[in-house]
Order: sequence, then structure tokens, then C-alpha cells
Amino acid sequence: MTELLLINPNTTQSITDLVLKHARTFAAKGTTLRAVTGAFGPRYVASRIGYAIAGHAAVDALANDRGKKDAVVLACFGDPGLAALKEVSAVPVVGMADASILQACAMGKKFSIVTGGERWKPMLEEFVASHGLASRLASVRTVAPTGADIARNPKAAMALLARGCNACATDGADVVILGGAGLAGLAAKLKSQVDVPLLDGVACAISMAEALAGQNLVRMGTQPAPVESIGLSKGLAKLIG
Amino acid sequence: MTELLLINPNTTQSITDLVLKHARTFAAKGTTLRAVTGAFGPRYVASRIGYAIAGHAAVDALANDRGKKDAVVLACFGDPGLAALKEVSAVPVVGMADASILQACAMGKKFSIVTGGERWKPMLEEFVASHGLASRLASVRTVAPTGADIARNPKAAMALLARGCNACATDGADVVILGGAGLAGLAAKLKSQVDVPLLDGVACAISMAEALAGQNLVRMGTQPAPVESIGLSKGLAKLIG
Amino acid sequence: MTELLLINPNTTQSITDLVLKHARTFAAKGTTLRAVTGAFGPRYVASRIGYAIAGHAAVDALANDRGKKDAVVLACFGDPGLAALKEVSAVPVVGMADASILQACAMGKKFSIVTGGERWKPMLEEFVASHGLASRLASVRTVAPTGADIARNPKAAMALLARGCNACATDGADVVILGGAGLAGLAAKLKSQVDVPLLDGVACAISMAEALAGQNLVRMGTQPAPVESIGLSKGLAKLIG
Amino acid sequence: MTELLLINPNTTQSITDLVLKHARTFAAKGTTLRAVTGAFGPRYVASRIGYAIAGHAAVDALANDRGKKDAVVLACFGDPGLAALKEVSAVPVVGMADASILQACAMGKKFSIVTGGERWKPMLEEFVASHGLASRLASVRTVAPTGADIARNPKAAMALLARGCNACATDGADVVILGGAGLAGLAAKLKSQVDVPLLDGVACAISMAEALAGQNLVRMGTQPAPVESIGLSKGLAKLIG
Amino acid sequence: MTELLLINPNTTQSITDLVLKHARTFAAKGTTLRAVTGAFGPRYVASRIGYAIAGHAAVDALANDRGKKDAVVLACFGDPGLAALKEVSAVPVVGMADASILQACAMGKKFSIVTGGERWKPMLEEFVASHGLASRLASVRTVAPTGADIARNPKAAMALLARGCNACATDGADVVILGGAGLAGLAAKLKSQVDVPLLDGVACAISMAEALAGQNLVRMGTQPAPVESIGLSKGLAKLIG
Amino acid sequence: MTELLLINPNTTQSITDLVLKHARTFAAKGTTLRAVTGAFGPRYVASRIGYAIAGHAAVDALANDRGKKDAVVLACFGDPGLAALKEVSAVPVVGMADASILQACAMGKKFSIVTGGERWKPMLEEFVASHGLASRLASVRTVAPTGADIARNPKAAMALLARGCNACATDGADVVILGGAGLAGLAAKLKSQVDVPLLDGVACAISMAEALAGQNLVRMGTQPAPVESIGLSKGLAKLIG
Repeated sequence: MTELLLINPNTTQSITDLVLKHARTFAAKGTTLRAVTGAFGPRYVASRIGYAIAGHAAVDALANDRGKKDAVVLACFGDPGLAALKEVSAVPVVGMADASILQACAMGKKFSIVTGGERWKPMLEEFVASHGLASRLASVRTVAPTGADIARNPKAAMALLARGCNACATDGADVVILGGAGLAGLAAKLKSQVDVPLLDGVACAISMAEALAGQNLVRMGTQPAPVESIGLSKGLAKLIG
Repeated sequence: MTELLLINPNTTQSITDLVLKHARTFAAKGTTLRAVTGAFGPRYVASRIGYAIAGHAAVDALANDRGKKDAVVLACFGDPGLAALKEVSAVPVVGMADASILQACAMGKKFSIVTGGERWKPMLEEFVASHGLASRLASVRTVAPTGADIARNPKAAMALLARGCNACATDGADVVILGGAGLAGLAAKLKSQVDVPLLDGVACAISMAEALAGQNLVRMGTQPAPVESIGLSKGLAKLIG
Repeated sequence: MTELLLINPNTTQSITDLVLKHARTFAAKGTTLRAVTGAFGPRYVASRIGYAIAGHAAVDALANDRGKKDAVVLACFGDPGLAALKEVSAVPVVGMADASILQACAMGKKFSIVTGGERWKPMLEEFVASHGLASRLASVRTVAPTGADIARNPKAAMALLARGCNACATDGADVVILGGAGLAGLAAKLKSQVDVPLLDGVACAISMAEALAGQNLVRMGTQPAPVESIGLSKGLAKLIG
Repeated sequence: MTELLLINPNTTQSITDLVLKHARTFAAKGTTLRAVTGAFGPRYVASRIGYAIAGHAAVDALANDRGKKDAVVLACFGDPGLAALKEVSAVPVVGMADASILQACAMGKKFSIVTGGERWKPMLEEFVASHGLASRLASVRTVAPTGADIARNPKAAMALLARGCNACATDGADVVILGGAGLAGLAAKLKSQVDVPLLDGVACAISMAEALAGQNLVRMGTQPAPVESIGLSKGLAKLIG
Repeated sequence: MTELLLINPNTTQSITDLVLKHARTFAAKGTTLRAVTGAFGPRYVASRIGYAIAGHAAVDALANDRGKKDAVVLACFGDPGLAALKEVSAVPVVGMADASILQACAMGKKFSIVTGGERWKPMLEEFVASHGLASRLASVRTVAPTGADIARNPKAAMALLARGCNACATDGADVVILGGAGLAGLAAKLKSQVDVPLLDGVACAISMAEALAGQNLVRMGTQPAPVESIGLSKGLAKLIG
Repeated sequence: MTELLLINPNTTQSITDLVLKHARTFAAKGTTLRAVTGAFGPRYVASRIGYAIAGHAAVDALANDRGKKDAVVLACFGDPGLAALKEVSAVPVVGMADASILQACAMGKKFSIVTGGERWKPMLEEFVASHGLASRLASVRTVAPTGADIARNPKAAMALLARGCNACATDGADVVILGGAGLAGLAAKLKSQVDVPLLDGVACAISMAEALAGQNLVRMGTQPAPVESIGLSKGLAKLIG
């Protein structure tokens, strides 16, 4: 029995619900899922400034969660706050983008990412590079609608996304990741229109979390030396204080 | 229902059995496992020359397997023949070393590998570098007994392996992989003696194979243009011919 | 007449005052300085979780500043929120760590960093690597007291810091950066005891900000597409909304 | 008097003869050449699966050669089995691709490779990268006919190859390597049609082997610890056993 | 009071005068500037052979300068002789290209360079790479007229330069450096026509020199062990002898 | 009949003679050798400032050589002026360090360099890195006597050099280069005392030059656009003017 906590630092409950619904379809038998939504910040992260806020919202969400969990999934593709969550968590923390690029590396030599929202392109290029995987990246391609737009009206984006995915094949990608909380579940619908294997970011995150939880790892994150703070939520102040 | 085929290119049946036994303890409910052993080559791969032979043995084993499978696990840490298997397989192929280093990257910034057999050290350093992950590698440390030696007498190696794993922590590793078909199952026994999280190579390979199989990927490997050959097994000659 | 805004995302007014005092000694004639302190977060950033919060605090501080400025200095060595600040600012934004490593590169082939607080070592190694400068880094060395500790009692740390700086020379550093808001002004006091040139992080940030402000650059940061938010300060909600 | 052994792991005698004929035209006075052909495997290596088999065939050929030699040339561009041959050989072993890319680096800052068979493109890109030379590679360009096709009918490929070589100049190549056992001798015929210097892969391999043999090096490869094996040729079983 | 020495290893007095004139407009109050011109070599450096000569001319100029100085600016974009000048100088030495690429890195993630003279393109790409910053470089674009041509007739080049700078934005540059002694002062005139921030190479060099001079650094360059020489200027022979 | 021109930019005739004498022992039958010595500069290059002068001396020597040649060998380990020589030469130009590191790469995965003169260590590390081969370098180790010292009294340095070479093996080197014009011929004398293969820098340069000359390459270096100059030798002024 594996219990996973999903943290959605995009502050939109319907996106949390969407991710959770699709996550359940990918989860193994015996996995249970819970999800929490960020308490503050933009409704959907689509810029660096939104990303900076979401990093705080993600650690705040973890600090205030009292439930049992065997692993945590950070359900915002781009993974704001991932390093901070890992620092303090006693169980594995899996980022949606991080899990996806690693599983893509298990599939082929070069991968691409397709997601919604134009400011994500340089952000994800830097994310991949900072994880040491720039030499494995074929391309990042974004479509104009953000993940939130796509979540509201997925049909309108299908042709655009298929075109983006196929363009990645000409960029040299052996495999393409469809990333973004708002795009949960679209990979299965697109795969017949795309010339290379297509990974679903949510599926990657769930299976990676199950994989790590299944190893019963010990000696994980530890609290830093306590420090006073101001203006934080009770849970977060207590976590660091 | 996920069916996994394990290919052990080390030509020792008892090691295949050992890996299979431990693989079953890590597999999800609903996963079935089969294993085949290389038809030729060294009893255990512990050198570059053994590795070159094992690459052929691995593709030979796949070519001659008629059973149904949803993914393939290459059960020799170091993954001889991995790129060739992926080239032609219609289902995902997961290398034990490749899956381990990718899951280790999901755990921490830097990882180390501990395995048996001294010639593996430069071979695994090159393996990691050729996968683009040199910047994530803290160290590779080997103990003198090979994986085959350890499989025969694991108790004799426990103290040596624990010391190796702890030395990796001082090398800067956030997580250590215990690699090698012959070391299957030892991570769980060692983890209380090691200061950082310890990943089991077999567990990593099984969960990565399940993860990829679970996405029902299409547009995978394809046969190259047929070419005549001499001196190959019937299955392999047919596969490439 | 150049006007610089210092943002100290460590929420300790006395550290803001300390940085401001030393910044003034380095500023050119004709430069005026103002400083703001983060509205929430840890008193001093010395961990990844503190860093994640400080990124939000930094953008919050900029969003709520109404004063005129020709450039912004992010006065926390490690630069939480730097990319987000640059994204939206119409004037140059200079990070204390970023400016320091760039000026260090102008001084020599390899540089080291010495700062307070042990969790900063991997964080700064990753910072340098993510800026593409891993090949220029000789080492990061930390002393046990945090920057806040050192700010309270600098004398107690002098011998420790000098030893750290000299150890960097044996690591191959041509130049050493003394980093950390809490260490402002100590480089001048330490330099006679150190075998290689010693850069002051605050001095680097101020002169880099003056340098960029002096070029009257245009076409800088721009607002992302507006997005609704919850739970943010009025200024920040307005900036992104 | 330098004696070179050429190993052609492509199992086509006429290609061995072709390489040997051209190799003789490049060899220094005082160099004698012998060649052996792989005992099993595809007639021509043009895929990853063929490459995996050829690595075994190459070490098998060396293990079964009883003749005197001062250096070994692995006469298949892409160098299957090169690391394994070096591991055990008491004399230098030179790969045709490896020698070519190194001599190309002596000629200019960036090089390209042109060869036959479309699957070689990613394989050679990975080969160059795994040798640490990705930053020196301008491009790999392949023509559709394989090396075996070109060996049978070189005239038909000349225009195609010239076009490929000239395209490399626009990719930024200072020098182009014409690679492939089946293309031996074509560089001289193409050079008047190509805008940048054109290296012949066979010539590079022969001169590099002569260069290394000429230094009378000692402390070369050594046998790994003996290991039992099954199903190998007598010579190879003895070499590793 | 900061005194800067400009060394122009291009042997054209009018270019020295041009750089000096523009340098003064960028210098802080309290900075005084002197300039010397190379005693031998090409009138303008626009090739590798000219660059090799200019490296000698630059060290010769320093060796023969008796004036007081707090920092040295090497006023030839591409920085011939920079490492040699730093080796022996007791005060900071700043290269125009080096300072520019570092300040560009403080401005954005990716930078481009635009300059005059087509042979500079690979030379500057190698310069950037050898400083470890290849991952930060979007592109180098050159216009056909050399810096000397542009200095003689800047108006004729304005449209060409603007087009080059804007092309860099499509190459992914966040910021563009206008480099070259002969282009001093043109950035201000071009900036309204260019879509990204535009840095002036001379301004960058002056402010970086002021920044380093302002830190009163000690333990800088030292003389190598004395060596006899022939055929050198008196000052240079004495400096190394 | 291959004619090689050796350029020794160290201005010591006896070192030119020494290199030439040893070069002849390595040259193939049918190779003739000529050598010229730099017309100005330090007697021996052992610092960055000497290196900057030697780059000019090397191009000056080529410009003033009227003799026939099929390739040029730059006989100063570290290769001052190499890129400039290649830019204009119609025949291949081979640097002693460049040829050595490339042949070392043909021998093993990692190489080290041992030479005389302590300032060469960072210079050669940067040389290797700027050629893209940092990942192949195990170490550079220098002994205190310069190459000139060793040329005068080789016996005194033998033990020191052997110790340095053996230390490289513990650094991970598969092969060690004995570099430096002044060390010509010492590799053969040292090899019995060293645990890994030992390459002679002069031998590497000669054989690489013969290898490239043997391919009758066309489309090599070309003159840059003519430029006026002052204070240069007649030959050099004419070459660039």
C-alpha cells in the first residue's frame, strides 16, 4: 500500500482535480493518492515570477500537510521548489518535469518537451541544463495557450500540440514529453498522431514516485538548523524554526 | 497485467535465478516475469572483452525469444547491447545501470555506484559519461570480488560493500546505487549500515520497466534494412536479415 | 546620478543596514543607495527551504517598491529570485553572487567562494554550474557559523575565514570571493592574511550595478501575460495580474 | 619494419580486400599489412544491432590471430570492439573512426564526417561525443547507400558524396572525414570537388597505427582475471579463460 | 582617483584616440585615462595572424609603460595577450571582450556578439568557449567591414550593424555586445533600432576596470623566473629577463 | 619524399639542434627535415608572457621561410601561434602538444602530460581544455627545471621525471606524454621506469605531420585580407600586407 501526496502549486483547484483524476488512471493497484493545492500565488505558473512564488507555495503546502505519505509528487511541470522539498522530506519527492526527463532518457538518446505557455521554453531549457541533461535535449517547443487554457479547452489545442510534437521529431527527438499539469491525460489522445513515442508527464511522475517509494529508502532529507522567521504560515514557520 | 522479459547476458543460470527471485520481490502486483540467459560468453562480465561479447549475447537472446513481453530488462549492470536492443524492440528496453542512474538522479544531485570487480570502475565512469550524466556522478567504487563471487558468498562481501557505500558519501554522493546482477537484494540488507539512501539496481530496473510499459508507448524500435550474415543463431540471422 | 535599490530578502533589518553601510563605501561618487528588507521569510537564508521562500520575498519586495531606481541589487549571496526579478524589471538587476563570480572570472581563470553556513556549499556549486561556470570554479568552502552569526560577531570568525580563503588557493583558485550579506566589509580586513586576491561580494554587486546602470540600457524585462492570483501582497498581485 | 594487422569485422571478404589494397597505397615504406575478416556477423555493419555483433567478431578475430604484429587497425568506421581490443592487446590498436577524428582535430577546429548508411548518423554522433569531442564536431552526414553498396558501385555514389562533403563546409567544418571501409580510396577522387580538406579514413588509421607502432610503447593492455565461458571460439575462450 | 591605462595593440593612433574619447564618456568621475598604441603589428587586427602579433605588441606596450596605473584595459576586442598581461601585472588587467561577455552574462542568460571583420567569428566563438562560456553564447555575427573600416566611416555601417544585432535576437540572445575598438560609441546610436539590450564593449571594459581597481586588490600577477632573450624592446627584455 | 619544416620559437639554437636530431630518429624513411629558430623572444618559453612573444616569433619564422615543405611542425610544446600558422599555411601545420594529446587519445581514455617549468601546468590545462579535451585529461605535472635546464643536463632530471610520470598513473592516466622541446628523446630512456605507456612529444609531432602530409590535402589555409603594418620583419609584413 503506497500513499502518494500530490502538491499542485498552481492555485487552481480544478487543475488539482484534473491531475488527480489522471494520476489515478496511471497509478498501480495498491497506490492511494491525495492532493493539496497551493495556498497562495498565481492561478497558473507561466512565468519566472510565478515560478518564484510557486516555490514558496510548494514548501508551504508540504509544511502544512499532516497526512501520511510514502512519497510526494510536485505536480507542476517545471518543479518549483523541488530542491527545497527534497531537502527536508523524509520520503522521496518527485518533480513532474524531473521524472519525465529521466524516463525520457531511459527511452532514447534525445528527448523533447512540448508544453503550453511561451515563457516556459527558456525556463525548461535551463531546467534541463541545470539537471546536467542539456546534451540529451533535442528541443523545447511551446504552444501559445498556457496549461490553464488547455485544461479549460483541450480540444482546441490538440492540433497545435500534435504539430509541436511532430516538429520535435525533426529536431532529433527519439521521444517527446507532453508536460504540464493542465495537459494531464492528453498524451494518450495524441499518440496516434505523433511519429515518436510520447510520454505523459503525470504518468512519469506517478510511476517514478511509486518506484522510489517501493524501495523503502532511509537517510533522506533532514531539517536545516532552526531559524526564526516572520510572516510565514504556522506550518512552515514551525518546519524551519 | 505487465509481462517483463529479463535478459541476463552473463551465462550463469544461477545468477539469472538470483536476479529473477529478487526482481519478483520488487515487482508490482500484476507484473509477471520471465528470464533468459545468454547462450554464449563469459560466465560473468567483468572486463571490456567480456562486455563486447555480452552485447552480442544480449541481442542474440532477444532475437531468439518468442514469448510475449511488454518490456525488456537487460539484467547486467553496465548494460551491454542496450542501444542495439532498443533499436529493434517494439517494447521498451531498460538497462539495469541506465535505470539506476536515472532513478538516482531523481533522488539527489550526485550519485555514486558501488559494484564488484575492479575493471568495472572505468567502464562505468565511461557509461555514465556517455549518457551525459558525468556532472551528476560523485564516484564509482568497486570491491575486489566480482559480482559472481559475491553471488556465491554474499556474507563475505557485506562489510566491504558497506565500507564502499559509506566512502561514497564522503565523495559527495547524495545517494548510492548498489549495482550488479550478482548483488541483487543486498541493498536492503546493507541500508542500515550506510549513511545515505541506497538504491538496488534490480529494483530500479524493474520499476522503470513497469513505468514505461504502463504508458503503452507506440512508435518504438524498428528493424534496420535487412542484411545478409554468417555464423549467427537462426533467430538473430532472421532478425537482421 | 545613479540610484540603486538594494533588496535584502533575509528578513533582518540589521543585516540590511550592515550591507547598506558597506555598500556606500564601495559606491561611486554620484551613486545613491536605498534598501528594502523582505516582508516575510527566515531571518537569514541558510538552506534550500529558506532560499525557496526568499525568492518569493525578493519579487514581493520589488513589486511593492515605488521608488525611482536605475538598477536593483539583490543583496543575498546566492541570489534567490534573480531570474524572476530580471524577467519583469525595466532596469538591470544584479545578484550579489552572480556579480561576484563574473568579476572573479575577469580576475583569473579559477575562482573559489568562501561563505558562512554549511548548506550553502552544494547550493553555491549548483548556482555556479547553472550559470555555466563550473569549469571556472576551483571550490566552495563554508565555515560553520552562518552569515547572520558572522554579522553579529565578525571577530570570532576572522581566523576561520582566513583559513578557508587560503585553503582555496591550494584548491587552485586564482581569486577568492568572500560572499554573504552578513560578511559585508570583511574582505578588506582579511586580505593581508590571504595569499590570493580577495573579492568582496557587496563591492562586486554595487560596481556591477553601476556599470550596467551607466549604459542606459533599453528593452529590458517585460511583464508576462496577466494572471489572477490569491494570497499575495497587493503590489505583487498587481504586478502579475 | 612495421607489421600491421587489419581486422575487418564486416564479414565480407571483398571489403577486406578493398581496404587492404587502399591501405597499402597509404602505408609507409617498410610497413607490411595483413588482414583478417570477421568469422560471423552481418556482411556489412550499418545498424546498432550489427554493431553489437561486430564488437564480438572483432575481439574474436584478434583472439584467433597467431601472427606477429606491431599494431592493429580496426577496419570498420565506427570501431566496434575498440575498447575491448585495447584492453587486452600488447600492441597499439587503432580504430578507423577514432584515428580519423583525431587527425581531423589536428587539421582544424571543427570536423564533419560523411559516410554511407543512414543509421550511422546518430551512432557516429554518439561515438564522437563519447570520445569527448562533441565540441569539435560540425556535423555527421550520411548518404543513403551503405558502405557495402558504395564498395560495389562507387561511381554511382560520387556526386552524392561530393554534395554531402560540401554541405559539411556550410555546417562549419574546417575538414571533412570520408569514413567507411567500403569508401576506402574515394577521398582522393573526390577532393577536387570539395571546398574543404578531405581526409581518408583508411589513410588516417594506417598512419596513426604506424605512428604509435613507431614509438615502441610498453605497458599496454593486460588480460583480465580469467573467467570460464561457453560457446566461444577456441581462441577467444582461451584469451579470456 | 582611479588611473586607467588603455593599451591598443592595433597600431593605428586614430583608433586609440577614438577609443580614448569614448572611454572618457563612460568613465566615472574621478577616473583618469591614458592610452598607448602598439609599437608594431598590423594597423588593425582582423585575423589570427594579426592576433598572434598583437599579443606580443600588447605585452610590449605594458613593459614599456612607466606611468602610474590602477588598472589596465586591453582595448582590442578579442583580447590578444590578455593572459600574459595578467600574469605579470600588479594591477587588474581587463580585456574588452572578456569584460563584455561577463557583463552580458550579468544581463541575461544568452548573449551574442556583433563586430566587424569576418575572420573574427570563429576567433570569438573560440574565445568565448575557452573562457568556459560557450553555453551562454547565442551567436557571433560579423559584418564585412572591419573595425578599422567602420571607424573611418561609421555611418555606412549603421544599417548593417542594426540588422546584425536584430538577427542575434532571433538567435536567442537576451543581450547583444557591440564589440571592437573601431566601434566605440556606436551602441548608443544603434540602441533604438535594436530589439534587445545593447552593450558597448568599451563601456564594459572601463566599468569593469573601475570595479576591480576600486577593490584595492593585492597578491596579483608576479614575474616569472628571469630568462634571457634576443631581439625584444628594452622594456620587454627587462621585464622578462 | 616528404619535407618537414620545424619551427622552434624558443630562440636557442642548441635546442633546435636537439629537437632536429631526435626528430630524425623518429622520421620515416623518405622524410627530410629542416629547422628554423625564432628570430626574437625568450631563450626558452616558460611563462605566459614568453608564450605571447613566441606566437609572434612562430608566424615570423614561417613568413620568412622560403624553402619547400610538405608540412610544418611547431616545435614548442604548448604550440604558441598554432592557430595563426594554420590560418595562412597551404600545407598542414602540426603543433607538438596538439599532436601529442591527439595521439594520446588514440592510446587510451585518459592521458597526462609531464613537462619542465612550473608555469606550464595551468597553461597546458587551458590548452587541453581549449581543444575540447578536458574530459580526457587526467593531469598535468611539471618538474621544477625548465625544458632548457633539462636540455642542458638531462641526467639530473631523470629521477624527477620518472616520479612525475608514475604519479600520473595514480591520477588515472592510461598514457603519459613527455612534452617539451628540451625533453626530446627522453621518453625512450624513461620508459622502463614508468608504469604506463610513455609518448614522446617530438615523435608524436613528426608522425602526425607525416600522416597529414601523406594525404596530399588541398584547400588549406588562405591569406586574410591584406592589411598595412608597422615594425614587422619584411617577410611577415609581406605575408599579411
